[in-house]
Amino acid sequence: MKSKKFILPETLMPTAWYNIVADMPTPPRPYLDPRTRAEVTVADLERLIASELARQELSRERYIEIPEEVQQIYRIWRPAPLVRATGLEKALDTPAKIFFKNEGVSPVGSHKPNSAVPQAYYNFKQGVKRLTTETGAGQWGSALAFAGRHFGLDVDVYMVRVSYDQKPYRRLMMHTWGASCYSSPTDRTASGRAALGRDPHCMGSLGLAISEAVEAALAEPETTRYCLGSVMNHVLLHQTITGEEAIRQMEMAEAEADVIIGCVGGGSNFGGIGFPFLRKKLCEGKQLRVVAVEPESCPKLTRGTFGYDIGDVSGYTPLIPMYSLGHDFQPSAIHAGGLRYHGAGSIISQLLHDGLIEATSVGQTETMRAGILFARTEGIIPAPESTHAIAVAIREALQAKEEGRERTILFNLSGHGTIDLYAYEQHLAGNLVDYLPSDEEIARTASQVIRP
Amino acid sequence: MKSKKFILPETLMPTAWYNIVADMPTPPRPYLDPRTRAEVTVADLERLIASELARQELSRERYIEIPEEVQQIYRIWRPAPLVRATGLEKALDTPAKIFFKNEGVSPVGSHKPNSAVPQAYYNFKQGVKRLTTETGAGQWGSALAFAGRHFGLDVDVYMVRVSYDQKPYRRLMMHTWGASCYSSPTDRTASGRAALGRDPHCMGSLGLAISEAVEAALAEPETTRYCLGSVMNHVLLHQTITGEEAIRQMEMAEAEADVIIGCVGGGSNFGGIGFPFLRKKLCEGKQLRVVAVEPESCPKLTRGTFGYDIGDVSGYTPLIPMYSLGHDFQPSAIHAGGLRYHGAGSIISQLLHDGLIEATSVGQTETMRAGILFARTEGIIPAPESTHAIAVAIREALQAKEEGRERTILFNLSGHGTIDLYAYEQHLAGNLVDYLPSDEEIARTASQVIRP
Repeated sequence: MKSKKFILPETLMPTAWYNIVADMPTPPRPYLDPRTRAEVTVADLERLIASELARQELSRERYIEIPEEVQQIYRIWRPAPLVRATGLEKALDTPAKIFFKNEGVSPVGSHKPNSAVPQAYYNFKQGVKRLTTETGAGQWGSALAFAGRHFGLDVDVYMVRVSYDQKPYRRLMMHTWGASCYSSPTDRTASGRAALGRDPHCMGSLGLAISEAVEAALAEPETTRYCLGSVMNHVLLHQTITGEEAIRQMEMAEAEADVIIGCVGGGSNFGGIGFPFLRKKLCEGKQLRVVAVEPESCPKLTRGTFGYDIGDVSGYTPLIPMYSLGHDFQPSAIHAGGLRYHGAGSIISQLLHDGLIEATSVGQTETMRAGILFARTEGIIPAPESTHAIAVAIREALQAKEEGRERTILFNLSGHGTIDLYAYEQHLAGNLVDYLPSDEEIARTASQVIRP
Repeated sequence: MKSKKFILPETLMPTAWYNIVADMPTPPRPYLDPRTRAEVTVADLERLIASELARQELSRERYIEIPEEVQQIYRIWRPAPLVRATGLEKALDTPAKIFFKNEGVSPVGSHKPNSAVPQAYYNFKQGVKRLTTETGAGQWGSALAFAGRHFGLDVDVYMVRVSYDQKPYRRLMMHTWGASCYSSPTDRTASGRAALGRDPHCMGSLGLAISEAVEAALAEPETTRYCLGSVMNHVLLHQTITGEEAIRQMEMAEAEADVIIGCVGGGSNFGGIGFPFLRKKLCEGKQLRVVAVEPESCPKLTRGTFGYDIGDVSGYTPLIPMYSLGHDFQPSAIHAGGLRYHGAGSIISQLLHDGLIEATSVGQTETMRAGILFARTEGIIPAPESTHAIAVAIREALQAKEEGRERTILFNLSGHGTIDLYAYEQHLAGNLVDYLPSDEEIARTASQVIRP
């Protein structure tokens, strides 16, 4: 039989990230200061994040070289396998070929270290001693704990209290790698103390955890910087290692992708797989579709407003040009915690606005059915976030079957789900429902998005 | 820099398992019927397990071909990476080269599916509809759930109650793959009902779970067979895919292993990595050491008796020629649940008896320290079982440093530990202690081992 997995030799691992901004017909609008509305500069950003990351954030260079020290740590799990999903194809009885890129093979179990490692590296090079960050479900916090350890950095993770209590495994991973993990709100910051003052039993939120992490970093400018796991351009830049590898692996498989699919929270795994393929479309005129999948319960791309909004809830971040539901939009408590974010990164938003990518949304029960089918045919239990991409890959494969046409589908398996099995338990017990926000609900916070 | 990972191309994946019995100067003594003391035959065994597995159990053929259907499923995660542990080497400041084979990359997170897949396959080919098995910590049960799903088999796992309650993730994995998982003792079997009759709050034991699984299989001989995850010769045979791959990968790395290390519960991951290298020693006269590592708290190889003992506690299994602590030996509650077994497989026992392999034991705190150092230098959080191999690899590397000599060390990373993080939590909190059974404790059950 033909190969099932396509493993890139280490010697062929890409040595540069791809910055799609260089090739966009309309580059994203600039970030703005939420108070002055002035354009944000590198100097503004580097108060918060490492200088090299601030430069990458605003860069228009097409390729940015991956430092050798970063490549070395990437090699712990990279190149990640490209897999032909023959079991899933058979179960669907489809003429379509389905491939997936397996980013679940990292020690953290997801794509997150692709950016955590360079972020830790550039901070280390700059002499930073301590990193702060927030984490919701825990994927990003554990990735930064893993990455920081390699450069001897202290890592302080502010973990949303409800997850801190419900997901002890993620917290234990961070501890094992030597990071400190705090249940947010804490009494370590003014934002945390204020929240606890209002409600001593406050369960926290991602917005609040961001505020705490940013505040903690700004309080010690000599030694400390903040890190973010998605949304920002430099994060998506680092994730393009995924798509760059996948392009080479699709060549090994002698296949050409017609449609590339990724789930979207802030957009990092989607940009990671999608942007290098989009280059073929933008620069070589290749016919291909790139599809962003979001949960029906948090439909910023399909039902949000294109404009300016802040990335957190307190305005610590710049105003970002994006599709947003409004920063106070409260998504329902779905199991794909990594997709419960009110906005998408500026590049993805601009690409969607310009019709260069597509967006679609899927309900929670359809995604979990897709996850179970995938686990039982391909053996790997996918993360609840990744099941969104799988659900749409299945839709595409069934459509190809209906039309009796071939189609080559590639999706990003952003992570495995063996630390998020409660979603599967709930689904198998029949306890999961779909949440479709009403138009009134969407309208309630839409006015927070500032039209440019 | 030189490569960190050595990935075998799929086309070079071994297509046969290695049966070391063919090359042993003294083959293991035969299994005996516990009642009649008659030599156990294939016909006896195939009442319990699939006929082809029964034949493999007693085979003396040197190589046994891996069926194409099994290879196909192996390819979901195999070939597994061989990794140069450069981070660990640096931390130890050792002249030794350290390599590890990463069997944690399987969807289950351990080496167990190497045997679960062929066991499910041969049962399927024979027309069996249902598999029964027991599981302690849950690694084997989830591996069989994963494997059974691929052939449409029903899988009933009897999981020791204390683990069933404490390790919900493993149970949820089994459910996700469609298996049934019962908290043992159950009221489904006479053994279970008897135990519950004696004590309705009985927390179960591996021996009891084996009895339940065997009883359930024997009750439906037309449709059902039993499967075992370690100890038996055919299980170790299937695991040799690990060592066969590693031999080819060490060639890619242009390195020759001086010492090969694996942890031992029943012996499956140890035999898997060790036997193919032992062939070089037995057939080509290569100078190399193969070291079995067991927990101090369950020291069958270093303090047990060589003789005949049963594999469970009720005598459902044959009398197996082995090093044993006596089948009623109660190991302390250490975190490496997979190593809490009273005996070792017959091949390993004979090899040790003949001085062809070495055995050593390590205390729990040393292993957890080794696990933390490995997680922080190599990025991967190892299973508590695998930390035993790491601890001895570190001992070897430090000895090489002391002697100022080169040494090439290879160990089997039998699984990752991200579903067993409580061991790390306990260790980091300073709650772990070492358990060294007294001579009186060892003597208490030693008489259960029958001298041949």
